[in-house]
Amino acid sequence: MKIGFIGLGAMGRPMANHIARAGHEVIAWNRTRAGDGVDDCAANLRLAETPAECAEVDILVTMLADDRAIEEVLLHKGVLAALAPATVHVEMATISVAMTKRLEGLHARRQGMFVAAPVFGRVEAVVAAKLFVVAAGDSRAVQYAAPVFDAVGQKTFVVGSKPHLASLVKIAGNLLVAAVIENLAEAIALIRKAGMDPYHFVEVITASVLPAPAYSVYGTRIAARDYTPASFKLQLGLKDINLALAAGEEFEVPLPTASLLHDHLIAALAQGHGGKDWSAIGEVVAANAGL
Amino acid sequence: MKIGFIGLGAMGRPMANHIARAGHEVIAWNRTRAGDGVDDCAANLRLAETPAECAEVDILVTMLADDRAIEEVLLHKGVLAALAPATVHVEMATISVAMTKRLEGLHARRQGMFVAAPVFGRVEAVVAAKLFVVAAGDSRAVQYAAPVFDAVGQKTFVVGSKPHLASLVKIAGNLLVAAVIENLAEAIALIRKAGMDPYHFVEVITASVLPAPAYSVYGTRIAARDYTPASFKLQLGLKDINLALAAGEEFEVPLPTASLLHDHLIAALAQGHGGKDWSAIGEVVAANAGL
Amino acid sequence: MKIGFIGLGAMGRPMANHIARAGHEVIAWNRTRAGDGVDDCAANLRLAETPAECAEVDILVTMLADDRAIEEVLLHKGVLAALAPATVHVEMATISVAMTKRLEGLHARRQGMFVAAPVFGRVEAVVAAKLFVVAAGDSRAVQYAAPVFDAVGQKTFVVGSKPHLASLVKIAGNLLVAAVIENLAEAIALIRKAGMDPYHFVEVITASVLPAPAYSVYGTRIAARDYTPASFKLQLGLKDINLALAAGEEFEVPLPTASLLHDHLIAALAQGHGGKDWSAIGEVVAANAGL
Amino acid sequence: MKIGFIGLGAMGRPMANHIARAGHEVIAWNRTRAGDGVDDCAANLRLAETPAECAEVDILVTMLADDRAIEEVLLHKGVLAALAPATVHVEMATISVAMTKRLEGLHARRQGMFVAAPVFGRVEAVVAAKLFVVAAGDSRAVQYAAPVFDAVGQKTFVVGSKPHLASLVKIAGNLLVAAVIENLAEAIALIRKAGMDPYHFVEVITASVLPAPAYSVYGTRIAARDYTPASFKLQLGLKDINLALAAGEEFEVPLPTASLLHDHLIAALAQGHGGKDWSAIGEVVAANAGL
Repeated sequence: MKIGFIGLGAMGRPMANHIARAGHEVIAWNRTRAGDGVDDCAANLRLAETPAECAEVDILVTMLADDRAIEEVLLHKGVLAALAPATVHVEMATISVAMTKRLEGLHARRQGMFVAAPVFGRVEAVVAAKLFVVAAGDSRAVQYAAPVFDAVGQKTFVVGSKPHLASLVKIAGNLLVAAVIENLAEAIALIRKAGMDPYHFVEVITASVLPAPAYSVYGTRIAARDYTPASFKLQLGLKDINLALAAGEEFEVPLPTASLLHDHLIAALAQGHGGKDWSAIGEVVAANAGL
Repeated sequence: MKIGFIGLGAMGRPMANHIARAGHEVIAWNRTRAGDGVDDCAANLRLAETPAECAEVDILVTMLADDRAIEEVLLHKGVLAALAPATVHVEMATISVAMTKRLEGLHARRQGMFVAAPVFGRVEAVVAAKLFVVAAGDSRAVQYAAPVFDAVGQKTFVVGSKPHLASLVKIAGNLLVAAVIENLAEAIALIRKAGMDPYHFVEVITASVLPAPAYSVYGTRIAARDYTPASFKLQLGLKDINLALAAGEEFEVPLPTASLLHDHLIAALAQGHGGKDWSAIGEVVAANAGL
Repeated sequence: MKIGFIGLGAMGRPMANHIARAGHEVIAWNRTRAGDGVDDCAANLRLAETPAECAEVDILVTMLADDRAIEEVLLHKGVLAALAPATVHVEMATISVAMTKRLEGLHARRQGMFVAAPVFGRVEAVVAAKLFVVAAGDSRAVQYAAPVFDAVGQKTFVVGSKPHLASLVKIAGNLLVAAVIENLAEAIALIRKAGMDPYHFVEVITASVLPAPAYSVYGTRIAARDYTPASFKLQLGLKDINLALAAGEEFEVPLPTASLLHDHLIAALAQGHGGKDWSAIGEVVAANAGL
Repeated sequence: MKIGFIGLGAMGRPMANHIARAGHEVIAWNRTRAGDGVDDCAANLRLAETPAECAEVDILVTMLADDRAIEEVLLHKGVLAALAPATVHVEMATISVAMTKRLEGLHARRQGMFVAAPVFGRVEAVVAAKLFVVAAGDSRAVQYAAPVFDAVGQKTFVVGSKPHLASLVKIAGNLLVAAVIENLAEAIALIRKAGMDPYHFVEVITASVLPAPAYSVYGTRIAARDYTPASFKLQLGLKDINLALAAGEEFEVPLPTASLLHDHLIAALAQGHGGKDWSAIGEVVAANAGL
């Protein structure tokens, strides 16, 4: 298939490459000059001069940073208007429920197909093509886009026909993962001040009641108090928690855990941890414990 | 070995039976008349008339409800005073760090050995002898008590020589598990109000980013909004969160997650959910979302 | 002076009337047909057909609902572009720090003067021309606008030359007032469940440690559990708390009190209290206490 | 009248002196050697060798630090048992609702009269005999104790016949005052990071929407970031917030504001502010804002 790919950031670059390596013809564009990782890819990935060049394709994948980038590129730069009727737009970044709904409306008006398919997985997972894809949209469109999902992910979950529900599952899932960081940070601060080895605590917990990689990975980072390099930058974490709070406001659901994370992420920014891994929430918790 | 066992509640009863079935001679006592589950056990479990009868043993296991019960039975009823010098006291309930430290002091004075060995696992796990045991104390004493741990658990973690650290690991671990409930309750309320099937959300999450039984078990309960019968009663959950807050105060570590849980557990009590499973926190979160 | 006045809502209508009655020639406009209260005013208040008619004046006062209304009317409808160089723009609504900064920039480019002058006071205060005005901007402009402030307020506080600081003082002050509601709601729920008369509690507190009208007014409302008619609607209260959270994010200051209020305001909306007085936060707190 | 007075701390000493100066015969006792302020008082204040000497009086006033001190002195040292039937016990310290209820029961059994009469006011107010007294108990007993209240306070509020309600009003009132500190700390951190003079903010707020001394006094302290000497020590503030949380648990009322204060007070202790004024909560908030 011919695939357009817009957004070649830390996640987008390896994704575009995986799709090209799977045998598809990829025409890709980035707002700034695309970095390495694209240049050295298979012959069938070509860089476009303008985003509109990415519109004449079977599937247009967008992996833009946030709502604002979507608005700028898809709407103001006219990509959406340039899409052929048959082109399926597959939005794979984590954007707001409201923006996904707005895209639903715009695609309905052009009578085109739209799939939201955000992904779970940090940088390590995208490099290994081991993402989890959460897709929602018209079932034919979702099926049509399956080769794209297979190229980047280990598993695809289809959560219905309304694209914004895929955004919401991603946002709610990210809230759960962020909460793991906050919860671990508190438990580990307690363990540390009591004089016990925090690594040992993480081992016990992940070998007993909470045997999930998130607990091992983040627990080890917080135990080490070492938050560079970032697998997922703290300032992006704040963006995602704000998406959760916005969804909570839209559906009228108070999310005190998201509020707590919001406050701790702001504190982390204020204390200079914005560029580190978002598990640097652990430093805010540690500072409050006098550590 | 000859094992004394004090405290035949929902956890204690099956534990005492497991130990007896493993071939040890068990002499057990409960504050109130012991219920079924003890009576129908192997010949080598005998019910004592007084707690002091349980003192002339190789190992005394206590599984009493809380600090107050420990104080009443071990101290006021004179069990501790009646212990032979060689008897190892193994405290397996979830009690406060402060009480465990106090017991450390009392045993040091009698020059006897003391192990704290609280367990992770709900009622289902104790029945299947699949508990996780977290033990701390003098290494010879811990080794001596290993047959008891093996009789009730699937794995034993030794977390050092200071018994109160075992209490702390249990308390911190329970805080993490309780946080899973709160976090899920919020995410599921959001999913539900957006019109998506909450069971499907739980499936996606536990098959992708958070593949741990706690997320499946509690996620399913909250999705079902069915909190009876209780695997772990909400009012006992409040006791455990209060132990976390007390430990936070002792070691000067603020625990905002514990504070949030405390507030939601109190609300659950106020709304009549005290006797249900502690995942009924989900009802407090649902009510705040107008569900 | 000739005064333009845009925004004739619950606050704007009586303000425009006060200014007209003080002897100024007022030309006023509203996005929807202006309601009563304007029609029956002194001869020197005239309703404009278009917002641009309000631009040829000595002072343009805007009292628009929120950032979006400002953007729509001042920017998209061209009012700002139509302003004469000498006209002073006085923004009196509660808007975001970011929007006030943006207006600062736009006025700087047109080399015109701009004052932010939001007001404290509920509906009762505006009717009695007893508002507190918090003004910031070029000192000559602030002085020039003094007659407007005197017409609507009992006192004007000048907080510097940067208009956005006036917005911030208003936002921070509103946060303090909202916090009074939350705090009282909790204390009163406690008093009520203990079986004591909540009115008596409010009397004691306001006659001793906290003798401020906010405590009497909101304390009495919460004691009465009667939140209609609204002096300040709950859904507007959420708007204001969101302005506080946005300011907290801009200046990197975590505001846990604002987060708590945000969560309780969302719960109040979810439970159907959006159109009531914002002290209906008391009902969320009461429900959590099983009242 | 003959007045026994137990508890000569920072509050008790000046209170005992005021009572003596009002013409009553005072026999006073302290757990440790009473400091200055008692020694140099009027001839009619005498120091007892044992607490029991304070029992043969018309009114016994207790001003002990906390529940534990009450238990130790009144119960274990036998003061309560030594009281004559006609002696009225007036408890004036801030103690738990549970302990006040327990004292109600003990006095009922001895058929003696008991008044709880905690006071509002920091050290400055006690020196000036300007406390606010909140009294509850049998109306004859309250009236009988009026001369004591008049000697130390500027006003007495009678809140009913159940002594524990006076404790609760004090606890709930203290929660409101502590909340003022937290709320101000957040607002001031925001103002400070925006580059505005925090003193000016406090002036505006207290001259407009929140004209109460608590806002001026604590606002000025937080603006100054100077928390010594303490008017009310932070570690005692934690004690009082814990009393609020205990009352919330007893009456099943979640108190998220108290939980937030609890967490910030623990952080303040961990960061070394325990001996400073409790408005040093401002430092925790400032640190979280990177100040």
